[in-house]
Amino acid sequence: MYPDSLKNLIECFKYFPGVGEKTAERMAFAVLSFDDEKADFLADSIQNAKKNIHTCPKCHNLTDKEECDICTNGLRDQTTLCVVEDPKSVFLFEKLGMYNGLYHVLDGLISPLDGIGPEDIGLDQLLDRIKEGNFKEIILAVKPSIEGETTSLYIKKILEGLDITVSKIASGVPMGADMEYIDPMTLQRALLDRKNIE
Amino acid sequence: MYPDSLKNLIECFKYFPGVGEKTAERMAFAVLSFDDEKADFLADSIQNAKKNIHTCPKCHNLTDKEECDICTNGLRDQTTLCVVEDPKSVFLFEKLGMYNGLYHVLDGLISPLDGIGPEDIGLDQLLDRIKEGNFKEIILAVKPSIEGETTSLYIKKILEGLDITVSKIASGVPMGADMEYIDPMTLQRALLDRKNIE
Repeated sequence: MYPDSLKNLIECFKYFPGVGEKTAERMAFAVLSFDDEKADFLADSIQNAKKNIHTCPKCHNLTDKEECDICTNGLRDQTTLCVVEDPKSVFLFEKLGMYNGLYHVLDGLISPLDGIGPEDIGLDQLLDRIKEGNFKEIILAVKPSIEGETTSLYIKKILEGLDITVSKIASGVPMGADMEYIDPMTLQRALLDRKNIE
Repeated sequence: MYPDSLKNLIECFKYFPGVGEKTAERMAFAVLSFDDEKADFLADSIQNAKKNIHTCPKCHNLTDKEECDICTNGLRDQTTLCVVEDPKSVFLFEKLGMYNGLYHVLDGLISPLDGIGPEDIGLDQLLDRIKEGNFKEIILAVKPSIEGETTSLYIKKILEGLDITVSKIASGVPMGADMEYIDPMTLQRALLDRKNIE
């Protein structure tokens, strides 16, 4: 029904997560409405991103350089390491602009139900890096979930015996949230982790 | 903060309607997760669609051929012409599989408030085509809105004196809709256009 070139474009947009037939059609028609310059820039950007972006050999963050800007920045605190589950988390924390240490990006989280063990998410490299480095604190900043907790506990365990503080980011009621919409697990965690007001 | 290639890709995705910073980021990361074959196919499809797809000189529908498949299909009813406001509408009607006439695609609708007059949406070409053709019925299938009504009335007017039936698609309560969620304008139209049950 659609001309072939349009049909192909619609199919491509369905690769994106959460994009079904209707959204893919809308996106394909949007491309047709772009001027040539914009469409070329989009196509080129896709290919350039795939060609240039790779993981930093040190921290596994995404970069287009040999090592990423954070690893090569001597002004950052070399004694604090924030462990995250994906490259996107690095950018989320960097946007805050309040963390000045280094990062280590895991390849996901331990998930025994999905057959994903510690060796699958790069914990060996993390341990090697920590042993070679000069870290005083490891901050675990992974999703508060079964997988996140499992991964955190595992990391805590393999770092036992090293003279390093292992912390994890706080879990609880999000700022500004209505109490009635908070799920019981979160509320339970918020209650258990209550802090004295000083 | 993001590597340049990633930053460019995120910017590109913001060209799409309804895509903001967060969605653009999600889409850019999705592209990075595609295998090379998929990413190449996406980039190529964008450029091929822009290169190959153009409007049919006869009906202004989108096509990758000299004239579109509908105009060149001699088996279609050459006496009925369905007038729509954009190429997407053609595909919507074709999906139904119940209409076998021809189409004419306008370049939008008359909108005096936006300074869009009859000459801006290609009504001259429509009139020329109807005069040259052998049409018995013109079906107006545009959005039921001020602009749609204005455009329909204008077309009805310029076709006065020609021996052609001018009809428009029914407007009213959509199938399966809950009555309480229907807007008053639609309900009013549904009441005015009520049909005898036979």
